[in-house]
Amino acid sequence: MPEKENLTYLPNPEATELLPQLTLDCTVLGFHQDQLRVLLLRWKGTQEWSLPGGPVRQTESVDEAAYRILKERTGLDQIYLQQFEVFGEVIRYNLSEIKNKLEHLIDPALWYNRAVSIGYYALVEYSKVNPAPDLYTDECQWWEIKDLPALLFDHNKIIEAALKALRRQLNWQPVGINLLPEKFTMPELQRLYEAILNRPLDPRNFHRKILSLNILERLTERRKGGAFKSPYLYRFNKEKYEAALEEGNLSFI
Amino acid sequence: MPEKENLTYLPNPEATELLPQLTLDCTVLGFHQDQLRVLLLRWKGTQEWSLPGGPVRQTESVDEAAYRILKERTGLDQIYLQQFEVFGEVIRYNLSEIKNKLEHLIDPALWYNRAVSIGYYALVEYSKVNPAPDLYTDECQWWEIKDLPALLFDHNKIIEAALKALRRQLNWQPVGINLLPEKFTMPELQRLYEAILNRPLDPRNFHRKILSLNILERLTERRKGGAFKSPYLYRFNKEKYEAALEEGNLSFI
Repeated sequence: MPEKENLTYLPNPEATELLPQLTLDCTVLGFHQDQLRVLLLRWKGTQEWSLPGGPVRQTESVDEAAYRILKERTGLDQIYLQQFEVFGEVIRYNLSEIKNKLEHLIDPALWYNRAVSIGYYALVEYSKVNPAPDLYTDECQWWEIKDLPALLFDHNKIIEAALKALRRQLNWQPVGINLLPEKFTMPELQRLYEAILNRPLDPRNFHRKILSLNILERLTERRKGGAFKSPYLYRFNKEKYEAALEEGNLSFI
Repeated sequence: MPEKENLTYLPNPEATELLPQLTLDCTVLGFHQDQLRVLLLRWKGTQEWSLPGGPVRQTESVDEAAYRILKERTGLDQIYLQQFEVFGEVIRYNLSEIKNKLEHLIDPALWYNRAVSIGYYALVEYSKVNPAPDLYTDECQWWEIKDLPALLFDHNKIIEAALKALRRQLNWQPVGINLLPEKFTMPELQRLYEAILNRPLDPRNFHRKILSLNILERLTERRKGGAFKSPYLYRFNKEKYEAALEEGNLSFI
């Protein structure tokens, strides 16, 4: 593998600090009160919302750019981001509409070029993050996924695509370790899966299938204070969970 | 959705015909004589091989670019291509090495800039395609995936990543309709899955699991002329296969 020092081999005087016409957008999902939520930014002096995103620098990988941009724009750090799709249509949204809405904030010349956007998504534990807005925005807020406003750019479409990718992930990788508290009941885990799939699941089948993934540990502790019989608490076995993330739960083993 | 006519809204005089610093590479996989093979190009006057790839035009989507580039560089048409990963490291390969090897073919100035590459893969029926080289290349040839030469750029790494993505696909989507002839036996289908996964599978489990996907039709016809008992022939049910491609074979239904 070549070394980073090779960068000195790139003396192109025309290269700007940013990769031209390449951006990325982050769909950050959290789970709270049985609802899947997404983190949105409200642009300064407007009622316009969008995903946190931005351009890639010449000196960073696209993955590094995703972590930097998420941190700069929301204050969130140490969150695992995953590429899921490239949004590469020639016309992704109505440019003149965006220009009118945001020209008080950003040099309109920046809107003239088409940009390809790399979509990333992240799953975070809602209670552990304290998002904060950046220079361009007044507010950084969680929104219920089933009750989103009309977003800037093609961001409603990007969120839909992120959810589709997450539903696919349920077929071969576990989901939940960053979306639930450390200890949870089987019905709580089921409600997370139901929120992602957006449909009810049969409790008995769910119980059997999720246990067959062999990533859960049942604790001796039970949930107290409910109206019915106290259910067992579970937690993820971190090692097995990580291995399943890496290798997938292959149906054809 | 905005219309393509909005393109006239993009009068930026600095925009060139190509998106700067954005390319794509196509890993085209075929299956022949129990081996998974990949289509490679040999550059004119060299012994250097690479995947078919190229830059994206301002006037086409990245998906359109992938189809155009594959056709221009290999003659292949009407092949379903699928995005699987963005290769966005700052240093993806040794630039001076590439410059030395290819400067007789391409303006060296073009090598000075870092490029992000979008990886696509395709699965094709080996017997039905007749690939042909382009202006830059002398030869377009199938190579056994387990016996590849050292390729230009980071293309060995891209092929590895394509295989990893294809193995994941086996968890939620069927594979085979473009890799096998119309009628095939269960052992032939198993050998395809074994070639993709690169490990042996238990015939009885494979038989049971693949039938449970509900995408195969058993024909009354049997394979004749073999040394042993003639096995049944199968074919894919196109409608059910397409539906499974679209929706995935969800484990959590």
